[in-house]
Amino acid sequence: MSGFVYDFVDGHKDLKDLLGGKGANLAEMTRMGLPVPPGFTITTEACRAYLRTGAMPPGLLAEVEEHLRAMQVAVGKTFGDPADPLLLSVRSGAKFSMPGMMETILDIGLNDMTVAGLARRSGDERFAWDSYRRLVQMFGRTVFDVPAEAFQAELGDRHESELSAGQLGDLVHAYQKVFEGHTGRPFPQAPHEQLFLAIGAVFRSWNAERAVLYRRQERIPQDLGTAVNVMAMVFGNRGEDSGTGVAFTRDPATGRRGSYGDYLRNAQGEDVVAGIRNTMPLSELATVDPASHAQLESIMQRLEERYRDLCDIEFTIENGRLWMLQTRVGKRTPAAAFVIAAQLVDEGVITLDEALQRVSGEQLAQLMFPSFDDESAPPPLTTGVPAAPGAAVGAVVFDSAAAVAATGPVILVRRETNPDDLPGMIAAQGVLTARGGKTSHAAVVARGMGKTCVCGAEEIRIGPDSFTVGGTTVHAGEVISIDGTSGRVYAEPVPVHPSRVVRFFEGELSAGADPLLCAVQRLMEHAGRVARLEVHANADTGPDALRARRFGATGVGLCRTEHMFLGERRVLVERLILAETDAERDEALAALLPLQRADFQQLFAAMDGLPVTVRLIDPPLHEFLPPLEELTARVARADALGEDAGHAGVLLNAVRRMHESNPMLGLRGVRLGLVVPGLFGMQVRAVAQAAAACAAAGGDPRPEIMVPLVATAQELEIVRAEAEAVLASVPGVPPVRIGTMIEVPRAALTAAQIAETAEFFSFGTNDMTQMTWGFSRDDVEGAFFGRYLELGVFATSPFESLDADGVGELVRLAVERGRATRPALTVGVCGEHGGDPASVRFFHTAGLDYVSCSPFRVPIARLEAGRAAVAGATGSDSR
Amino acid sequence: MSGFVYDFVDGHKDLKDLLGGKGANLAEMTRMGLPVPPGFTITTEACRAYLRTGAMPPGLLAEVEEHLRAMQVAVGKTFGDPADPLLLSVRSGAKFSMPGMMETILDIGLNDMTVAGLARRSGDERFAWDSYRRLVQMFGRTVFDVPAEAFQAELGDRHESELSAGQLGDLVHAYQKVFEGHTGRPFPQAPHEQLFLAIGAVFRSWNAERAVLYRRQERIPQDLGTAVNVMAMVFGNRGEDSGTGVAFTRDPATGRRGSYGDYLRNAQGEDVVAGIRNTMPLSELATVDPASHAQLESIMQRLEERYRDLCDIEFTIENGRLWMLQTRVGKRTPAAAFVIAAQLVDEGVITLDEALQRVSGEQLAQLMFPSFDDESAPPPLTTGVPAAPGAAVGAVVFDSAAAVAATGPVILVRRETNPDDLPGMIAAQGVLTARGGKTSHAAVVARGMGKTCVCGAEEIRIGPDSFTVGGTTVHAGEVISIDGTSGRVYAEPVPVHPSRVVRFFEGELSAGADPLLCAVQRLMEHAGRVARLEVHANADTGPDALRARRFGATGVGLCRTEHMFLGERRVLVERLILAETDAERDEALAALLPLQRADFQQLFAAMDGLPVTVRLIDPPLHEFLPPLEELTARVARADALGEDAGHAGVLLNAVRRMHESNPMLGLRGVRLGLVVPGLFGMQVRAVAQAAAACAAAGGDPRPEIMVPLVATAQELEIVRAEAEAVLASVPGVPPVRIGTMIEVPRAALTAAQIAETAEFFSFGTNDMTQMTWGFSRDDVEGAFFGRYLELGVFATSPFESLDADGVGELVRLAVERGRATRPALTVGVCGEHGGDPASVRFFHTAGLDYVSCSPFRVPIARLEAGRAAVAGATGSDSR
Repeated sequence: MSGFVYDFVDGHKDLKDLLGGKGANLAEMTRMGLPVPPGFTITTEACRAYLRTGAMPPGLLAEVEEHLRAMQVAVGKTFGDPADPLLLSVRSGAKFSMPGMMETILDIGLNDMTVAGLARRSGDERFAWDSYRRLVQMFGRTVFDVPAEAFQAELGDRHESELSAGQLGDLVHAYQKVFEGHTGRPFPQAPHEQLFLAIGAVFRSWNAERAVLYRRQERIPQDLGTAVNVMAMVFGNRGEDSGTGVAFTRDPATGRRGSYGDYLRNAQGEDVVAGIRNTMPLSELATVDPASHAQLESIMQRLEERYRDLCDIEFTIENGRLWMLQTRVGKRTPAAAFVIAAQLVDEGVITLDEALQRVSGEQLAQLMFPSFDDESAPPPLTTGVPAAPGAAVGAVVFDSAAAVAATGPVILVRRETNPDDLPGMIAAQGVLTARGGKTSHAAVVARGMGKTCVCGAEEIRIGPDSFTVGGTTVHAGEVISIDGTSGRVYAEPVPVHPSRVVRFFEGELSAGADPLLCAVQRLMEHAGRVARLEVHANADTGPDALRARRFGATGVGLCRTEHMFLGERRVLVERLILAETDAERDEALAALLPLQRADFQQLFAAMDGLPVTVRLIDPPLHEFLPPLEELTARVARADALGEDAGHAGVLLNAVRRMHESNPMLGLRGVRLGLVVPGLFGMQVRAVAQAAAACAAAGGDPRPEIMVPLVATAQELEIVRAEAEAVLASVPGVPPVRIGTMIEVPRAALTAAQIAETAEFFSFGTNDMTQMTWGFSRDDVEGAFFGRYLELGVFATSPFESLDADGVGELVRLAVERGRATRPALTVGVCGEHGGDPASVRFFHTAGLDYVSCSPFRVPIARLEAGRAAVAGATGSDSR
Repeated sequence: MSGFVYDFVDGHKDLKDLLGGKGANLAEMTRMGLPVPPGFTITTEACRAYLRTGAMPPGLLAEVEEHLRAMQVAVGKTFGDPADPLLLSVRSGAKFSMPGMMETILDIGLNDMTVAGLARRSGDERFAWDSYRRLVQMFGRTVFDVPAEAFQAELGDRHESELSAGQLGDLVHAYQKVFEGHTGRPFPQAPHEQLFLAIGAVFRSWNAERAVLYRRQERIPQDLGTAVNVMAMVFGNRGEDSGTGVAFTRDPATGRRGSYGDYLRNAQGEDVVAGIRNTMPLSELATVDPASHAQLESIMQRLEERYRDLCDIEFTIENGRLWMLQTRVGKRTPAAAFVIAAQLVDEGVITLDEALQRVSGEQLAQLMFPSFDDESAPPPLTTGVPAAPGAAVGAVVFDSAAAVAATGPVILVRRETNPDDLPGMIAAQGVLTARGGKTSHAAVVARGMGKTCVCGAEEIRIGPDSFTVGGTTVHAGEVISIDGTSGRVYAEPVPVHPSRVVRFFEGELSAGADPLLCAVQRLMEHAGRVARLEVHANADTGPDALRARRFGATGVGLCRTEHMFLGERRVLVERLILAETDAERDEALAALLPLQRADFQQLFAAMDGLPVTVRLIDPPLHEFLPPLEELTARVARADALGEDAGHAGVLLNAVRRMHESNPMLGLRGVRLGLVVPGLFGMQVRAVAQAAAACAAAGGDPRPEIMVPLVATAQELEIVRAEAEAVLASVPGVPPVRIGTMIEVPRAALTAAQIAETAEFFSFGTNDMTQMTWGFSRDDVEGAFFGRYLELGVFATSPFESLDADGVGELVRLAVERGRATRPALTVGVCGEHGGDPASVRFFHTAGLDYVSCSPFRVPIARLEAGRAAVAGATGSDSR
């Protein structure tokens, strides 16, 4: 015995690696004494052996035979018995469920002989021939790839349910001919041959194209293999005392306690899916079949106790006898996840640490988007692919220029988008496309921007000035609503509800008796207690900082000083750039100083008692000038008309002189500080004066100065010396720490030297991702990220979740090397990854002290910081 | 005794760390019994202690006193003796010589009393007062920073040599008043005070601004400190039997055997520098003072034996007695370096391994530039800073547009350059500027481009259409010549001589009896024998490859296939870009296939039997379209005039659609291969067909396929699978290895995974430098490299020499991780660093298998590969 086959009585739920998820859970239920049809699981090891050699591993078929004999004894029927045949189902069951693998084959064991026996024993000839029909069709399709249309052609426009037993018999023969025509062999009559062929087909389906692609995208190892579950058939379609259903141990939508599900009398699972008849709520089963209902309720309670979580189940009742066909820890909505986790703590089933593992930042993020009220929403016009979450309402526009020109909120509707549409996407509330999936340009770019997007709404036909769905036409300017979470599109304005969870965080709502808000409050508080990572916010103004503080931020991790140069102040920067003498430059800087000082003062006041990290100016100065293309066109037009280009000409010269072919890699950050005399000095002086003023007014300002784009210790040494001189020259300045962004790969590699001069590191993971991968986000998201996601080069965009292998390796190196030089070095991150759940967990593991993210994402990061802290303790982290 | 002072008899030449270069060599000469005036050296340790505390370390002055007493005994005079005073010189002497440090102070020990004693003993009152005058002036200037002009004002327009003893006495008193006026203290009369103040001043001069900057730029540690040499004065200005001179043990210009030098009778070193009288060749000393001459010749021979190399010396003869004042291993021209190294091997003094250490790739590079014939060249018009080597002749143009428009060779002449001048710099043969040093925009950019450049020629006055130097005017269009190695500017065409060394490598000259070519040949052959690194060439065409092969390349490490798309073929790429259907795209690719195939066939034939690494297309496709700005202006003009923009409009749309804000970080390299169907496949097919054709014709083609810009193993896996399918479909293809560029930082970090799919790595250190530092060469060289070099942030541009700490760290990581996965992994480099001497040494140490560089630099890399191999063995590498 090589042990390739486990009887259901021999396994248990923790053997998922070997038995797959389905097999392990069937074994667990069997061990618990629940009514599971007899059966066995062929291990993933057998599959791996088959895939290595292309043949059934030695001993496997003998083992299967042996287990089959045991099953025959248990059931009291014999496989292939013409009088009363045992029938089998064969199902794949990998550790992780995935699309593209072979689905169920039912009714294995039927052939031209046994079909008659089944008819006789069941007393239902139609049932027997219908079962045989199902077998030939499923077997042909899934084992031999006979096209579904070939069978459909024989059926014509009839439906199976209309056919009599005789007609079904004829159909079986027609299907058998189809089978032979496509495969060159007759439909196999030997039950064992059917079984072995089905098992081989399940094995091979591990390498089906879609499955391979899915695994590549999800980073599931390609060599796990699938298990195969072989189970005695039970039938829910044997009359009114039979039926089939699905159930949840709690409401998966709201988390409400109490079982929840649907039941369909006299039906098999397939029929539920087909949706021809209406199901009844599970509670009605109590009336129809009180014994089975009570048994089911009791089983569900036991499953919850065993799995310590919400379970979903599939069951069949055959002639009044209940059979459990499947169970697993059930999927649930984000709201239900929070409510159930808190309930289970109340019920004493799990600890608060475990409860934190049952929710995720992704779920919290979904709860924080505004949404349409599903109950009061009108029927949708159509539904597309939900590509970027949120709820957007606006007037329809059909091109980028119209979106940019619009004064009110708009939805950009396009067949598909391309880089030309970027300005329109920025201007619009949301984007709707007729083509493309989750990796299309529109989807990738909208997600990157945080815009609501529904794409691939294929029913839409777009004309020059309107679009139609079926008979409905929507013209440009008419208001529509799109739901990026569900993919629904409404041909009218639908009221948008701000998130209750956000209103709760904002302090506008109290948790009261609301189960969701109570659960959120409780888990957030626990996260705060256990977290090791602090959560700071990226905030450039006093109001931003106040909001972040309400959301739980314990500092400002990034204040982008260049944002203080926008709007009307842009002209001051322009003056700085055009300065031709030292005096002109100093004058321009002097004009900026009081403005910056006032901004800082507001920020320090809002964050009184907490650290505020001020980043010196980062972007290239030419970003404050009008675009080259615009000026070129203006001057060229003036020239052509013989006019004087005036100030545009002066600006064009400046822009040309400062033009950079790769501005991301040009004169910016610390380089500006070393090249433009007085620029950093002015900023440091503004920080010093603002801090001194706050302190003099009795406040507790805690400014820190952060130098961007440092690549080598020498740069920082020079800036630090200048900054220290300025700080020393302003009376009454509290202590100011000086540190650096670590965003250039070289800074991470030489962190040991840089830490000699830096008191803190803050990873700028956006720029670091760009430089480590060698791509600029602006250019590549639309250009090839979709293709890369499709090909599985990325599992997710490295701008959404930190690339742990590449960029993360630099983070690890920098933390290790920096702390080796300066053990007390504070290390944080202020790129957008600071608010991404998976990335927060990475940063915890990498030993960072804090993450900093946009105010809106602070709660998400706080939750994940708590989860990361208990992940080690509870040793689990759901995939 | 804390041992802060070493008598010359106690040291030796290997104590440079402690005694500085000058002190160690004076000690060595003393040990050899050569006639060195008695003296001692105060150690660098004393200096470090002084700089730490700001005070003379305890015990130092007592030690000095003690050594001074010994010196008095040896000389037979007493310091401060009014009758016959011992006089001293005090000189700085660090391990590495550097500018900015305190220079010599002579005649310490003179005061109002001892000057009379000196006059009496020497019988030369004028000599005594002139010596005192020198002391007051030097002491004031160097110890107390009294401005030189203050002394000059007292002298007026007289010259010291015209003054009588009495006038000199008056001048001394006037200088003493100047001293007191500026320092607030009288000129110190106590000889010991003079001495101690001078020693402290030398110590402090270690931190003089220029010295600090120099050390930062040269990466000399700031904490070494300088030694101080105190020596009894000897006088070459005591009459016709006295004098002073400098000499070399061989001719430092040509390497010719035999001593070589200059002698000036009745003079001190200062007078030689002043250049008032003409020196005599050393050989004439044999007539004037045969005994001293013979002694000197014998000493020089002994020094050569001791130092095993050319030495230079300074000496003084005082009343017929020879004194050695200094020696060191002497500087020499590149030609002399080669000739002397070979000579010393012939003489049995050094081994061939050591000889390799005596020359450098930098020197060989200088021998490979074309040059003017210095002997026949006319007198230069002026001389500027030699900023980028080479010899350039061309018509004068004064702006970039004129340079671009010119049909013949031009020299761009500018007051200084800025980014607007880039097109002109590219178009010109050379660049001449009136302002700026070696770190100016012009210098940095020209060096980066390999253009000849003379900058900071300050005598030049530039007008709108001409420039003048003194009375000479040069108009636009007139031909000038500039020598980037010497800085000379000629107002006429000067014949340019191609390098003899290059002609020798090309096979146009044989070495014959030419000592330089013989030496080069011999050392190159030895380098080839000992080198572990192979040297390949970057070559895109058959003729390039043939030339590289003549220069000793053993493979093509980089064939840039995009270079095959330039010129007339550009339109084919345009067609590919504008293709709107699959068919159009396939057609465009099909048209490119035979052209590429023919190119490859030529290349494989030229490199028959050697590897040829073909890199698949790398740059973004929009590089093959006209620039956005040009098209924008064309279309805007057409619009303004109400005309149809035609094809320019179509192209503008394409360029806009494909526009990238950071093209270096955009859709290029492997990304193109994954996004543009068939593009890489076409190139692989062309390689396969060309190789098959060469093999069928009896050749031995060895193609390798290299994928650019890979950041993650998945990209390479996909390309490799496609390439293997194409290779398998072409009959008769020899084995083709498939590997990848390692140029994106992420590729280096994840080299372990990438090596699973790559058979070789080739570092693209240009792009890797750009991404690791986060700057694009195009944008930053002119924008801030000059400032960074000035500030010492860089010692050299990281584009010239590989940045060993940052980029080099990635190289080391990638080699280590790649080989851990695949021990037989071949690793090379194909960035421009492959031909840079310092970088070649780095690559050797990092364990690479080969470097690849432009054909011209192949000999340089071969020499350095040999030097790197013996560096470990001989344990030395000159700074």
